[in-house]
Amino acid sequence: MTDNIAFKDVKGLKAMLSAGHITPAELISVFAERIDQHNELSKAFITPTIEAAKEHAANMSREDLEISPFAGVPYASKDLFDVKGVLTTAGSRVFHDRVAKTDAYAVAKLRAAQAISLGKTNLHEFAYGATGENEVYGTCVNAYDPTRLAGGSSSGSAAAVAFGLVPAALGTDTGGSVRAPAALNGLVGLKPTIGRVPTSGVVPYCWTLDHVGLMTRTVEDCADLLGIVAGYDPVDSASVNRPVDHYGEVLGRDIGGLRIGIPRNFYYERTDDEILAALERVQEFVAAAGAKLVPVTFPDMEHSRTVSLTLQMPEALSAHSAYVQERGELYGADFRAGLALGQCILAEHYVKAKRFVEVYRQETNKLFDEVDLILTPATPEIAQKVGTVTVTRNGVNEAIGNAITRFTTFFNMTGHPALTMPCAMHTEGLPIGLQLVGRYFDEKTVLQAAHAIERSGRFSIPLPSFGS
Amino acid sequence: MTDNIAFKDVKGLKAMLSAGHITPAELISVFAERIDQHNELSKAFITPTIEAAKEHAANMSREDLEISPFAGVPYASKDLFDVKGVLTTAGSRVFHDRVAKTDAYAVAKLRAAQAISLGKTNLHEFAYGATGENEVYGTCVNAYDPTRLAGGSSSGSAAAVAFGLVPAALGTDTGGSVRAPAALNGLVGLKPTIGRVPTSGVVPYCWTLDHVGLMTRTVEDCADLLGIVAGYDPVDSASVNRPVDHYGEVLGRDIGGLRIGIPRNFYYERTDDEILAALERVQEFVAAAGAKLVPVTFPDMEHSRTVSLTLQMPEALSAHSAYVQERGELYGADFRAGLALGQCILAEHYVKAKRFVEVYRQETNKLFDEVDLILTPATPEIAQKVGTVTVTRNGVNEAIGNAITRFTTFFNMTGHPALTMPCAMHTEGLPIGLQLVGRYFDEKTVLQAAHAIERSGRFSIPLPSFGS
Repeated sequence: MTDNIAFKDVKGLKAMLSAGHITPAELISVFAERIDQHNELSKAFITPTIEAAKEHAANMSREDLEISPFAGVPYASKDLFDVKGVLTTAGSRVFHDRVAKTDAYAVAKLRAAQAISLGKTNLHEFAYGATGENEVYGTCVNAYDPTRLAGGSSSGSAAAVAFGLVPAALGTDTGGSVRAPAALNGLVGLKPTIGRVPTSGVVPYCWTLDHVGLMTRTVEDCADLLGIVAGYDPVDSASVNRPVDHYGEVLGRDIGGLRIGIPRNFYYERTDDEILAALERVQEFVAAAGAKLVPVTFPDMEHSRTVSLTLQMPEALSAHSAYVQERGELYGADFRAGLALGQCILAEHYVKAKRFVEVYRQETNKLFDEVDLILTPATPEIAQKVGTVTVTRNGVNEAIGNAITRFTTFFNMTGHPALTMPCAMHTEGLPIGLQLVGRYFDEKTVLQAAHAIERSGRFSIPLPSFGS
Repeated sequence: MTDNIAFKDVKGLKAMLSAGHITPAELISVFAERIDQHNELSKAFITPTIEAAKEHAANMSREDLEISPFAGVPYASKDLFDVKGVLTTAGSRVFHDRVAKTDAYAVAKLRAAQAISLGKTNLHEFAYGATGENEVYGTCVNAYDPTRLAGGSSSGSAAAVAFGLVPAALGTDTGGSVRAPAALNGLVGLKPTIGRVPTSGVVPYCWTLDHVGLMTRTVEDCADLLGIVAGYDPVDSASVNRPVDHYGEVLGRDIGGLRIGIPRNFYYERTDDEILAALERVQEFVAAAGAKLVPVTFPDMEHSRTVSLTLQMPEALSAHSAYVQERGELYGADFRAGLALGQCILAEHYVKAKRFVEVYRQETNKLFDEVDLILTPATPEIAQKVGTVTVTRNGVNEAIGNAITRFTTFFNMTGHPALTMPCAMHTEGLPIGLQLVGRYFDEKTVLQAAHAIERSGRFSIPLPSFGS
């Protein structure tokens, strides 16, 4: 039964629970066993909370099981999310003793929905980095090939779902940290519109670009999870008070008539040919399904990584300055170097970066006058070998972390909702992902198109053979 | 007839226009003559646009007169607002040749409302300074005593209305630059909620704190003017898309039951006794009218000026760096010093200031759980003599510009709507003002209470004797 359950989606698990084929407590036991078997290799969990999960499961009534699509189902959260009474390490020695006093907003919503927290997942220290390498808690590997990286910074959340240790996970996405690892591991990853899911109770990395993100096996699970964690919290200045949206209601609708933007300029010349070929097959499919492909020209993104970093490092520094003074020696080398970089950035340049962001936002908004969605690759490269420092493509050498997030970072600045999902297997045996970007607060159309692509069956990829 | 018209409110002028007692063209002639007589002393206008105003008036039809409460009525705008085809000097030599290609958002709304632009008013160079001193275009003086300052930075807008050169004016308010001079000149000044009136087409000073503000003779005129200029412009990132509000509908309603917050801590020990006494009389009046006085404790404002400047100078620098390179020698000494200060501010500190602002905003929002409005003095001092550098009160010596805006700056950071209005005359013959602060986007309640205070007649002040 274990293997049968480990890679089921939430909807499938929920059906088993509702039918009485399994109890929440039995479900926790299955996943606890998986964690026991596979966490050493995957490094997915920093702190599994099996006992607390078992206690939660044991206390659930039959009625509790009907509260939400996630009731009785376990999930994991990146170790930046506070879960009351549990360590939040942020992937760092600095927070080795930081026990959360309350739940993060999203965790509290999941608790109220009777989803069962199964523990806290690994990450690049303080979310600063896209490879998921972590000198303290180990480096997460890819379930499709454990010699390869899971990607990051939400490396553990991706690995946990990909290794079948949990059916869904929360992550954070400041430059692609949910979408990129989801794509590299064959999962659905969503960065909702900025302000859609409050970041309260999540250790901040970059105040103005941080988004709570979701990882699931299917688009429908993603819609259900978003329905649970979306909301308003006045304590989060980016949070927006909006009426409740019913994300699931568009699933199954056909996509005839949707106008899908295909960027003319998106660094295609520095993208793996197999990824481009996979994207073309998706374009052909959506066109055949009645969507209209509309070429769009993106704003000049040449400086977008610099702009993002000019915001990231001072914001990180501002959040960390007290800890740097108290326990600076506990920081890892990468993050310490980033903070040092942050010390050299002038306010004038930070403000200029903010103005760039405003231009990006407005120009991207204008694209949505012509289209309903934008379709891009999720990443220009598949998951690389553990230890890779740079990738070279078309003569350009690029740091691996920069390459991984090259297609995603921009949308943290503009704030638009963006989803990645698998769309093919590379001949090297690793998943290829696509990215769909929508209008502000129009996650529905993003989910609608993603679901159409998924349910066509043409872009399904095999489960990882490892451990399944 | 001239004197009879010069100090009429917009409503009164409108009644004369509607009754056919005067034509728009005749009205322009009356004010043109006033400008001719009093601009040399007041220094209110940098660029009067009499000919354009006459042409506009001449082209108005009878139907045009019914379009809005300001149709056929002249107004002035601070020389940061673009008016198509007219110079926008920003009070600086740097912009001596900057002719606007389009109207600012508020100007376009007023044009569509058939209000007649009568010209561009003086200011502290680039709005950096609260005294209104300007070495290029002269220093505006107070209509109640021309040896005193009008205050700033919207000095010319205040002087223009106070000297009877125009019945209403637009200004900008980044730390009190509308509310303070309005109070010092016996006028109504409103800084609406951040995002309520787009700042598009207004030369920026501090991107995140700039607000468009209004100056009028009466609360009703203020409500009417807000109704015209409020709106949404996606080009302004702070702009908020909200349904149209009918500000005037609350005027005349009694204030019984309103909970009015009286700050326990507001630097009262460093405020002119006569100002405090005037405020107490207002408190007694509103209590007698059925409002409930609720003592409230403000967040610690000790660092609020530093926080505001830490945002202002880098933002100004960022907006000006191109001009500094091209024509740096044209900047005045004050502003150049400010920009130099801005160069020393690190991004880390800018971000920390932003976090302070977020705390201020949240804690002020919390006060509005207990109260509907907050009542404070508008300024701790009346208008000071031209040339005053510092004021000393209770042993503390303070730069005059800091003193003038000590009660207003905070609400630019929190974003709440705030209105100042006259409430007494000082024995030195200068107006004393109060400030009413409301909930986000609740200008209505602010206007309701202000109107009740105004129409009671108990707090009316005489018109300036000068030139009337």
